Amino acid sequence: MPIRVTVWNEFLHEKTRADVRRVYPEGIHAVIAAGLVEQLAGAASVRSATLDQPEHGLPYDVLADTDVLFWWGHAAHEQVEDEVVDRVHARVLEGMGLVVLHSGHASKIFRRLMGTGCMLRWREAGERERLWIVAPGHPIVADFRDEYFELAHSEMYGELFDIPPPDELVFISWFAGGEVFRSGCTFRRGRGKVFYFAPGHETYPIYHDANVRRVLAGAARWAAPSGPPHVADARNIKDPLEPV
Amino acid sequence: MPIRVTVWNEFLHEKTRADVRRVYPEGIHAVIAAGLVEQLAGAASVRSATLDQPEHGLPYDVLADTDVLFWWGHAAHEQVEDEVVDRVHARVLEGMGLVVLHSGHASKIFRRLMGTGCMLRWREAGERERLWIVAPGHPIVADFRDEYFELAHSEMYGELFDIPPPDELVFISWFAGGEVFRSGCTFRRGRGKVFYFAPGHETYPIYHDANVRRVLAGAARWAAPSGPPHVADARNIKDPLEPV
Amino acid sequence: MPIRVTVWNEFLHEKTRADVRRVYPEGIHAVIAAGLVEQLAGAASVRSATLDQPEHGLPYDVLADTDVLFWWGHAAHEQVEDEVVDRVHARVLEGMGLVVLHSGHASKIFRRLMGTGCMLRWREAGERERLWIVAPGHPIVADFRDEYFELAHSEMYGELFDIPPPDELVFISWFAGGEVFRSGCTFRRGRGKVFYFAPGHETYPIYHDANVRRVLAGAARWAAPSGPPHVADARNIKDPLEPV
Amino acid sequence: MPIRVTVWNEFLHEKTRADVRRVYPEGIHAVIAAGLVEQLAGAASVRSATLDQPEHGLPYDVLADTDVLFWWGHAAHEQVEDEVVDRVHARVLEGMGLVVLHSGHASKIFRRLMGTGCMLRWREAGERERLWIVAPGHPIVADFRDEYFELAHSEMYGELFDIPPPDELVFISWFAGGEVFRSGCTFRRGRGKVFYFAPGHETYPIYHDANVRRVLAGAARWAAPSGPPHVADARNIKDPLEPV
Repeated sequence: MPIRVTVWNEFLHEKTRADVRRVYPEGIHAVIAAGLVEQLAGAASVRSATLDQPEHGLPYDVLADTDVLFWWGHAAHEQVEDEVVDRVHARVLEGMGLVVLHSGHASKIFRRLMGTGCMLRWREAGERERLWIVAPGHPIVADFRDEYFELAHSEMYGELFDIPPPDELVFISWFAGGEVFRSGCTFRRGRGKVFYFAPGHETYPIYHDANVRRVLAGAARWAAPSGPPHVADARNIKDPLEPV
Repeated sequence: MPIRVTVWNEFLHEKTRADVRRVYPEGIHAVIAAGLVEQLAGAASVRSATLDQPEHGLPYDVLADTDVLFWWGHAAHEQVEDEVVDRVHARVLEGMGLVVLHSGHASKIFRRLMGTGCMLRWREAGERERLWIVAPGHPIVADFRDEYFELAHSEMYGELFDIPPPDELVFISWFAGGEVFRSGCTFRRGRGKVFYFAPGHETYPIYHDANVRRVLAGAARWAAPSGPPHVADARNIKDPLEPV
Repeated sequence: MPIRVTVWNEFLHEKTRADVRRVYPEGIHAVIAAGLVEQLAGAASVRSATLDQPEHGLPYDVLADTDVLFWWGHAAHEQVEDEVVDRVHARVLEGMGLVVLHSGHASKIFRRLMGTGCMLRWREAGERERLWIVAPGHPIVADFRDEYFELAHSEMYGELFDIPPPDELVFISWFAGGEVFRSGCTFRRGRGKVFYFAPGHETYPIYHDANVRRVLAGAARWAAPSGPPHVADARNIKDPLEPV
Repeated sequence: MPIRVTVWNEFLHEKTRADVRRVYPEGIHAVIAAGLVEQLAGAASVRSATLDQPEHGLPYDVLADTDVLFWWGHAAHEQVEDEVVDRVHARVLEGMGLVVLHSGHASKIFRRLMGTGCMLRWREAGERERLWIVAPGHPIVADFRDEYFELAHSEMYGELFDIPPPDELVFISWFAGGEVFRSGCTFRRGRGKVFYFAPGHETYPIYHDANVRRVLAGAARWAAPSGPPHVADARNIKDPLEPV
């Protein structure tokens, strides 16, 4: 059965800025989705959803039909309705995977799942970034042979990144300007698997990069649901253990 | 310098139920505070705050003057104002320790810090509980010599406990009726240290128990602030690294 | 491509004790292997190896051809040659999965990978054990619908279990006699994934149990290698970063 | 009661190389010890031990009288007797803190405690290192106000560092030449706390640096023993739970 992926994009920059449109003419979501299709082929079915759609394109039935949700947001985090955030949150706890990209660190859904501020340092200088793999053997990086890969021009995201200690640290980034960043982190919340992956930018062609695409495909495979139904409600167990 | 502790209690049961008043005539907070004073003596200064006070007894200056906040709530989680929750949350991220007790698992502040539902199984059967220490060498249990301690009559709290994987697991509880529980868990959020400790009940004399009091004292010591100031804001670092 | 599993057994009890032979006439390894074949069918190819074979049945080419090694040892840990332990250790760091069963907690290979004593409490009373799932959504327990499963007659293994804090805690066991145990734990070592699973006994029919078999199958799937080649050697990198 | 610290040094380079003697005329251990005394004053009593002493200066009574052992080794790891390694190992599991410095990553004791190869990349280019604090609020960095500190000339140690996932990641280092490193890591083993801290070199004056000294002092405070006696032996518990 293919992994059912939904790529969510706030889809604003692409309509208002020519420099963004040049890199992502159909929207960032279209390039992320194309990368997943390219890497996963028949192993995934990929669709997208955007802020301007009814219920931001994420009504109940779409979420119920989604195994892994990718989240790109940047300038309009506050425009995302709390009701939709509640719904995405509930689905993550139920088992839906969530891959939060780049500026999504400040999204309502990521901050709610983390319980911290999620802020960081940043610098838009198109500088060199090296992503070091520090969890060899992790399924997300199963397709990599080298110790690191590089992005020639990247937005710097630097520590201190105000997140809880991640369950697994997969990537640490090095930036030419002097910073480091925990750029690939996993978190388990309820039955859901959450992966934060830092690279991404609206005018750098990050999601066209072959290595980035391999990471996103690995993340989709890893975050797909597994395991028992989520136990969300309080349960008053009146009867103690009966004899065998 | 003494650790400045504030014990918060919703303080409702004690006013309305005779069975609770019998065990906690001055309020649960008074017994928790007495236990801390007994164990920590001059190493701590302890005060309390309750739901019915203005701003629930937790205005800015009280929180600013608190190193470790203990939290007892049960029947009135929803009556806690969101503004106060915001304030406590911000102080935890800044470095204030937080010790969440028993039914506080369902409090607004704990659920916000965890990002999950925090629900669990429970049974009020006054059954036997054994708390096994699984993090030997942890400062919270520095005062214990044995592998476990017992509570003869306890409310069962059982797995699955819907929390993120704790940073450190200090206690696992065994219950006569067939359940286990991660009953002592630490979490780091921002600069703040959070400890969840499960034992407690409004009619069982849990906070009169000598071992429970030793755990609470260890928790106060461990959760007291340390480390660098918290970096909460996003920081746009325009200039890259200057040469040495 | 099927997962290549090798089940290792010291295979002594079965030859000398009639009570063991009654439950495991062909050896414990045969029943473990049969369970894996039953659960994984064509997704795994399963063979076995035993202490009395040359190089304990684990020469280089067998290990090189193994994705996941299951380890059963009990009475003869010290008879396992250090050279074979070195070889298994190296293969785990390279990426081979290792599933350590029951009394394998005291094996040379497990103790070497953990760096601790790995001792525990135990009691042979055929008592009731309940295994609670505390990592919902973990691939190892993907086939379970309930919060726990039971073994009617089990050997008690109890805390304190002298292991490093596990990377992931999947099961906590409850025993009728008053103990708890971290009975399903994962550890990452080098590129290899290690799973310790506590149930098992030479005269209780644990490996005939359907739920135990489902866990072992989940463990085989989870522990199969993934990720980049292991970087085992020190690397003197003479040249610093060249310009882009 | 002061923390009883023993600083161990293999003490070879200082005798044979003039360039090392220039920076550490009395031995690296003398400068590390002086830094601890400077920072901790009466809160610690500090002595040293070296490879050339009987039993490498670490007979039973010295270890029994040590709360925290600092370990510096570089060129002579293989000359450390296994019997002394066994003894240090046993004391760590019992509760003695261990702070492993720089090239001690390849020492017998560290590799035994980790269970992995512990190898890494390195480059002796006297390049700039920035140590980013990623665990704000951790006691080891309680004395720091800034997000990072720098060493102008340092030996590069880079990922992949072949260690188990640390329990807590306190520092990530950035190097001018393009590498990152998990340069401050904690590990719990038995009752003992282990801290690996990467900076250090025999000809760079790293242990004269004020910030490095503050880290070492914080490590001594943090690693000092606490908690219940270590449970090292297997325990056959014949009797199940007696009724209350």
